[in-house]
Amino acid sequence: MSEQAMRPGAKGGTEAAGLPGNESLIPQPHLRKSFSEAHLDFDKQGGLVPAVVQDHRTREVLMVGFMNPEAWEKTVRTGLVTFWSRTRQTLWTKGETSGNSLRVRRLWIDCDSDTVLAEVDPKGPTCHTGARSCFFEEIVDA
Amino acid sequence: MSEQAMRPGAKGGTEAAGLPGNESLIPQPHLRKSFSEAHLDFDKQGGLVPAVVQDHRTREVLMVGFMNPEAWEKTVRTGLVTFWSRTRQTLWTKGETSGNSLRVRRLWIDCDSDTVLAEVDPKGPTCHTGARSCFFEEIVDA
Repeated sequence: MSEQAMRPGAKGGTEAAGLPGNESLIPQPHLRKSFSEAHLDFDKQGGLVPAVVQDHRTREVLMVGFMNPEAWEKTVRTGLVTFWSRTRQTLWTKGETSGNSLRVRRLWIDCDSDTVLAEVDPKGPTCHTGARSCFFEEIVDA
Repeated sequence: MSEQAMRPGAKGGTEAAGLPGNESLIPQPHLRKSFSEAHLDFDKQGGLVPAVVQDHRTREVLMVGFMNPEAWEKTVRTGLVTFWSRTRQTLWTKGETSGNSLRVRRLWIDCDSDTVLAEVDPKGPTCHTGARSCFFEEIVDA
């Protein structure tokens, strides 16, 4: 789909978006690609792309990790979210030791092909602290 | 809050989590820190942390960018999501040219203090293509 096709009149889109509650009027295209057609850009960041993990049902953001080409391929092939551990310098299938795995429901890449979004069914707590999500610390003021 | 306090019996938590639909039983602590108390770890990745942007109302993941310390400080201070543009090597307050800004509603950092989650009210489409979210390309098979 071309950029033009996705933007039914920039002015109209912007005006609609300015009305609170009308965000759903902003178009959201849905392209589909196979793994072999998708070319993630690993060069931008030293061979890694960030991967956001979101609970498929609750839409809670659970964690963010990094994938190298092998982790990405293994995630697609096995249906279990697999990262490249920057600290341990090794492939890391989430849950392989804790049992708290992340079963892929849907996989997305972004418009720049340099970020992954994995919608998952989490098994148990995602965070190593035992929390449901790694994001439990809120910044409440300046 | 200590790790122990956040994990009311690892076994119980894991068992509850094993039952489909019982993820809400997994504890989700909620800590609050001021900007000055929060110490984001920018060293892990050459001075940058990934920042996930999520629609506050719909919980849709809209985009992922990177922040350096100045971008993080400006985001907190102004309430408008600001990134470090890796390609342009400059601070970039989303919407400064397009008008499609991201007004912060809640800010979170993760358990390792190396990732930001910004819940926002988006103004207009977030993606430069005119799409609501940058994640519109689904990987559908291996």
